[in-house]
Amino acid sequence: MSRIDGRTNEELRQIKVTNDFTIYADGSVLIEAGNTKVICTAMVEEKVPIFLRGENKGWVTAEYNMIPSSTMIRKTREMSRGKADGRNVEIQRLIGRTLRSIVDLEKLGERTLWIDCDVIQADGGTRTASITGAYIALIHALEKLKAKGLIEDMPVKTSVAAVSVGIVGGVAMLDLCYEEDSRAEVDMNIIMTGNGEIIEIQGTGEERPFTKDEFARLMELAEIGIEKLSEIQKDNV
Amino acid sequence: MSRIDGRTNEELRQIKVTNDFTIYADGSVLIEAGNTKVICTAMVEEKVPIFLRGENKGWVTAEYNMIPSSTMIRKTREMSRGKADGRNVEIQRLIGRTLRSIVDLEKLGERTLWIDCDVIQADGGTRTASITGAYIALIHALEKLKAKGLIEDMPVKTSVAAVSVGIVGGVAMLDLCYEEDSRAEVDMNIIMTGNGEIIEIQGTGEERPFTKDEFARLMELAEIGIEKLSEIQKDNV
Amino acid sequence: MSRIDGRTNEELRQIKVTNDFTIYADGSVLIEAGNTKVICTAMVEEKVPIFLRGENKGWVTAEYNMIPSSTMIRKTREMSRGKADGRNVEIQRLIGRTLRSIVDLEKLGERTLWIDCDVIQADGGTRTASITGAYIALIHALEKLKAKGLIEDMPVKTSVAAVSVGIVGGVAMLDLCYEEDSRAEVDMNIIMTGNGEIIEIQGTGEERPFTKDEFARLMELAEIGIEKLSEIQKDNV
Amino acid sequence: MSRIDGRTNEELRQIKVTNDFTIYADGSVLIEAGNTKVICTAMVEEKVPIFLRGENKGWVTAEYNMIPSSTMIRKTREMSRGKADGRNVEIQRLIGRTLRSIVDLEKLGERTLWIDCDVIQADGGTRTASITGAYIALIHALEKLKAKGLIEDMPVKTSVAAVSVGIVGGVAMLDLCYEEDSRAEVDMNIIMTGNGEIIEIQGTGEERPFTKDEFARLMELAEIGIEKLSEIQKDNV
Amino acid sequence: MSRIDGRTNEELRQIKVTNDFTIYADGSVLIEAGNTKVICTAMVEEKVPIFLRGENKGWVTAEYNMIPSSTMIRKTREMSRGKADGRNVEIQRLIGRTLRSIVDLEKLGERTLWIDCDVIQADGGTRTASITGAYIALIHALEKLKAKGLIEDMPVKTSVAAVSVGIVGGVAMLDLCYEEDSRAEVDMNIIMTGNGEIIEIQGTGEERPFTKDEFARLMELAEIGIEKLSEIQKDNV
Amino acid sequence: MSRIDGRTNEELRQIKVTNDFTIYADGSVLIEAGNTKVICTAMVEEKVPIFLRGENKGWVTAEYNMIPSSTMIRKTREMSRGKADGRNVEIQRLIGRTLRSIVDLEKLGERTLWIDCDVIQADGGTRTASITGAYIALIHALEKLKAKGLIEDMPVKTSVAAVSVGIVGGVAMLDLCYEEDSRAEVDMNIIMTGNGEIIEIQGTGEERPFTKDEFARLMELAEIGIEKLSEIQKDNV
Repeated sequence: MSRIDGRTNEELRQIKVTNDFTIYADGSVLIEAGNTKVICTAMVEEKVPIFLRGENKGWVTAEYNMIPSSTMIRKTREMSRGKADGRNVEIQRLIGRTLRSIVDLEKLGERTLWIDCDVIQADGGTRTASITGAYIALIHALEKLKAKGLIEDMPVKTSVAAVSVGIVGGVAMLDLCYEEDSRAEVDMNIIMTGNGEIIEIQGTGEERPFTKDEFARLMELAEIGIEKLSEIQKDNV
Repeated sequence: MSRIDGRTNEELRQIKVTNDFTIYADGSVLIEAGNTKVICTAMVEEKVPIFLRGENKGWVTAEYNMIPSSTMIRKTREMSRGKADGRNVEIQRLIGRTLRSIVDLEKLGERTLWIDCDVIQADGGTRTASITGAYIALIHALEKLKAKGLIEDMPVKTSVAAVSVGIVGGVAMLDLCYEEDSRAEVDMNIIMTGNGEIIEIQGTGEERPFTKDEFARLMELAEIGIEKLSEIQKDNV
Repeated sequence: MSRIDGRTNEELRQIKVTNDFTIYADGSVLIEAGNTKVICTAMVEEKVPIFLRGENKGWVTAEYNMIPSSTMIRKTREMSRGKADGRNVEIQRLIGRTLRSIVDLEKLGERTLWIDCDVIQADGGTRTASITGAYIALIHALEKLKAKGLIEDMPVKTSVAAVSVGIVGGVAMLDLCYEEDSRAEVDMNIIMTGNGEIIEIQGTGEERPFTKDEFARLMELAEIGIEKLSEIQKDNV
Repeated sequence: MSRIDGRTNEELRQIKVTNDFTIYADGSVLIEAGNTKVICTAMVEEKVPIFLRGENKGWVTAEYNMIPSSTMIRKTREMSRGKADGRNVEIQRLIGRTLRSIVDLEKLGERTLWIDCDVIQADGGTRTASITGAYIALIHALEKLKAKGLIEDMPVKTSVAAVSVGIVGGVAMLDLCYEEDSRAEVDMNIIMTGNGEIIEIQGTGEERPFTKDEFARLMELAEIGIEKLSEIQKDNV
Repeated sequence: MSRIDGRTNEELRQIKVTNDFTIYADGSVLIEAGNTKVICTAMVEEKVPIFLRGENKGWVTAEYNMIPSSTMIRKTREMSRGKADGRNVEIQRLIGRTLRSIVDLEKLGERTLWIDCDVIQADGGTRTASITGAYIALIHALEKLKAKGLIEDMPVKTSVAAVSVGIVGGVAMLDLCYEEDSRAEVDMNIIMTGNGEIIEIQGTGEERPFTKDEFARLMELAEIGIEKLSEIQKDNV
Repeated sequence: MSRIDGRTNEELRQIKVTNDFTIYADGSVLIEAGNTKVICTAMVEEKVPIFLRGENKGWVTAEYNMIPSSTMIRKTREMSRGKADGRNVEIQRLIGRTLRSIVDLEKLGERTLWIDCDVIQADGGTRTASITGAYIALIHALEKLKAKGLIEDMPVKTSVAAVSVGIVGGVAMLDLCYEEDSRAEVDMNIIMTGNGEIIEIQGTGEERPFTKDEFARLMELAEIGIEKLSEIQKDNV
């Protein structure tokens, strides 16, 4: 029995990466995972936040947002609500933390990499698509720095990609679309390096607790997905 | 003597309209004017703001924003600055006012049309492209309402398009790109109906006052531009 | 057929200027246009915003606000609403831009002129009265700077005044009061120098688009008004 | 030995009350105490805050603000600072509490009296002038309600006025101007009814603690001032 | 080789639960884990948020905050910073989600359980202590509802507790104190039911990615900790 | 006839002071007055606010807050309401002003003392308990500075304590609990030094004005209370 969109449980949605999607950012990528579309950009600023001044280290920070028309029910802008959206805050902290963990901040030098993930269409998996796309944008931005002679070596320890997995109707599945996600009993986002090591796991029993066996099955699926995504990344950097 | 990008003074940049650019909004258009790219969407909400309840009238409201990577120097998000950007406020008021002036709010019925203009790349003329594109998105949204039988006739009095004109180095020009705009002595945005009537004029002597003759020449150019844009709109609705 | 208050269509309301209305500001003017009353002040601060530091240039910035009792329905304070009022933002940007366009910022030296326009009674035309009055306050403040020997010449290129015009019930009129303004089909604010050159035009078809002929008639009326206002300004600086 | 401005220690500054200072508020007073000038208005709103709905009681609330040019050093607007000014908050709570204590809220009926005190020039004693002037504005507004037949009797228990006293250079003085206030060792604001009963006392040892004897002397001075202010109020209601 | 505070790697810090720590909340617990101290309370409100009205379901929501003196470097209050603290937002979303997952919202009826976790001393593991303590406070509040006859059965599916684990200096450890946490290479928070099922896993490779074997060892430690905490909970409900 | 809790009118509630209540602050006190419980802490920061830089003076500033579960009806956090609570603002200004008046800021040197008063249970008199407790925390913090050799002498001029008094049902009483306070006709907070001199008086006729005789009786009661509190303070510093 196949899924809503005909995929098997071990199958990613179609991933499409458009490099140089816009012209001003040092790295600019449109990543599409099925109907999910995120503009991921990396921009270099030649200074660091106050808490790092004079430490000979760089910084990587991320912001995540959704345009109002990206969701079925129009998403009110944070500025109109008058306060930050908790989910956005959580996601941008995750993206920033993830990218900092694979960048050698000493080698980066006293500069900041601003990562922006702006979702223009959301059909589940926007945070994982953001991370997967942001890695590509970050590499492009660093390559420009290297081409200009501002850094000698690429200050990146490893590649990183992210994918969602979950249990829907009792069945473990890879890369949930919105409709699957909204019915999922268990929902997990996994971030791994290209070598199959874990950078972050966030698993939630939305509807019920889950067992270690279920967890193990979800990890298996995630590894399949990450491997595929890592290959796609390699083709785009 | 031609312009930076080889255009004559009476020439628009290349305009490209992609209909149905995203899938959730009732109307969704990507409008490109040269390197300026704006996602314009229209979403219907089946209620009106408090001040209109029970008046048997609808409402049209607009929001305008730029994603951080849309500009050469990364644009800080309003939420990070902690307050609304004055320019955004001014522009979204202009877009809303313009569209309300061509919609028959009684015929629209008690519902709100949310117009969102999200700039993903900015090379001058983002507010005029927003208006030109938003008109198309609005028509698409209204046509869906009509197809569903929620309205009988299209509640639109006329089409509307907008263009910028300006005096750069003493020369009057149509449709300024960012580099022209930043050097302009006089800068004007003109919003007109498809019949050549005026809806809004905003002209500013940025570097010096201007004469009525100069104003007349700018109006001529604007009319040329609006006529062209109105044709493009006709092809897309 | 005369207007609500007995004026002809080419007539300004009674303009009254009280110089030195309050004692602390370097320039302080109460301007009255009929029932509209605005306190316009100019205060000198011996530093410039960060973006101008070390550029040997000055800055002129403006803020506009209405006290709650200035309007028939009490106007909620921005602080109580928790966010800036879009109309205020738009108007103060206009006032600042206008005054900057007539001040020679290099000659002003590294200092800021703070212009404050606080409306204490609003009967239409508050933004144009603000500009007309602020020009006088600004001249007074600059004269004090000159008297103290802080500047050599007056760093002002020309005088500037502003007036509203509009079409009400099909008739073009000068200097609309609130009741006229609220019924206006077309509403325009025009800012001109004492020499009859244009600094800013903002015209809006509130209820319907307007023609170029109508526009020309409105310009004529505006010129009549500006000429009169410029004379009043001359008597007060 | 007389004071800066030649007054004796038991003397108020010149008090001037202009009734009907502006035209929209139900009560509108300009009160001047020497160089201190405050616009005090009362506006009636025919509803009450949520917490009072259906209780057959009215409400009195106050807001206090200073326009930026009211002080020697320009006062930044709350909206520009992005947060409420603690001193404003404290003062408006005091004004509201004071006026509520003399109004019979049951008799007022389900309506709100909005009191606004907008300081246009500040030379010490703005909070006490605000209270003294607001009482007059409130009476005017209530008289209009009565004239319209909306209330039967005046819902006011007693008159109320306020004055500052302080110890400057070891000497107890009535009604401090800014220069005295800024050098005061002890500073007290006293609010009393027309019958000499106390409504509020706020005394602060700014520079040093004070004794009960000093307190008694300050109370004597305050009573002299309040008696005088109550007479002025009687002449204006 | 033992840890900073002499514990083995499989040992929790001393856990102390003080029931009825304060008197107003329906459930009020002070939970201490070593030097970490959190006041966890549950308060019942007899209404639900707008999005649940009329659905015959209840709601559980949580807020988390630290008092400024709870940390070695004084923690600035959110209100003084002018915006929500991202970490707080993330943690309170986690607490709310966790408790909702074990409460039967239908059985709870149309009421809201407000969970507050206020950290008064922070030495690592504040979010996990908050969850462990909040569960106890929630049970106490529900028991009061039951004693009053407002609910028939306890609407709780299972108990829930949380613990942190991490890899410090290459060694996997249970229940990190602040000093361990700040040097941890891998940091994980695990939330499990009393039956050993997983509700949430959040694991982060702070300094380096981690392997599946390391993950398995951390899970083992977490299970040891949760089992112990579940017993302590049983003794306190 | 005795009071709700059996006290005489001249009796304080039971006062309990726990020193070193938490471990990070330089001074940390839990003060309890009956059911009112406040954590008062003092933390030293080795810099001063901008307006004092280079003046060879220190600063004392205070913040006051209540945790949501401290009151019978849950108190919404300021961050959730989106703006500062007026009462909090007023109280923290009072605490800061009081402590600054007894500290010799020159002797303190260029450093800031941050005073935090976090109410964990509120049964009336939280602001006076905060001041009484904050004085003790401040002394502890200064003693640590002295022990470290950072200051030579204790920069404190005198001790300070605060108490509430009021008239309830026509009877003057010392140290009101919440139930008494909510029914009080007159409510007063008095802050005095250990020598019986006055630092601040804030008296309000909540329900009716009060006479000078009533005021005198309230002062007598306050002196009795302050004397007792000063002794308790002496035992704890």
